[in-house]
Amino acid sequence: MQARVYVTLKKGVLDPQGKTIQRAIENLGHQGLLDVRQGKLFEVEVDNALAREEAVRILNSVAQEILTNPVIETFRVEVE
Amino acid sequence: MQARVYVTLKKGVLDPQGKTIQRAIENLGHQGLLDVRQGKLFEVEVDNALAREEAVRILNSVAQEILTNPVIETFRVEVE
Repeated sequence: MQARVYVTLKKGVLDPQGKTIQRAIENLGHQGLLDVRQGKLFEVEVDNALAREEAVRILNSVAQEILTNPVIETFRVEVE
Repeated sequence: MQARVYVTLKKGVLDPQGKTIQRAIENLGHQGLLDVRQGKLFEVEVDNALAREEAVRILNSVAQEILTNPVIETFRVEVE
């Protein structure tokens, strides 16, 4: 079973890395991209022996405990 | 207009960072997550003056030129 965890910065948290990328894009002549924010993405291969609900439960707790800094980041879990 | 670019490692490319995360998850007692691969995620705010097709075209070329290392990474563009 394939799953994905998307980790993004919370609204209001500054993202200097994203800002730098946005400026690089502009300097290379691409117009119309007003803001860029960088996040993380985890592709997880889940044991098929697990029930879908159990997989979602485990992924949520792993995302909360390990993959995310809860002070500045938020996450979303997606199981195929 | 909100868009996202997902950058992931190509199949066959080793991901020691993902492997380390997967081992950490296991050591913390979570079973059933067989493999973890880390990718990048870019949240892009696109000028609403752009047509959707134009936005997709720009995002594809930005992803190809700037956000991705085409030797080891692949990407997917999503416009809301």
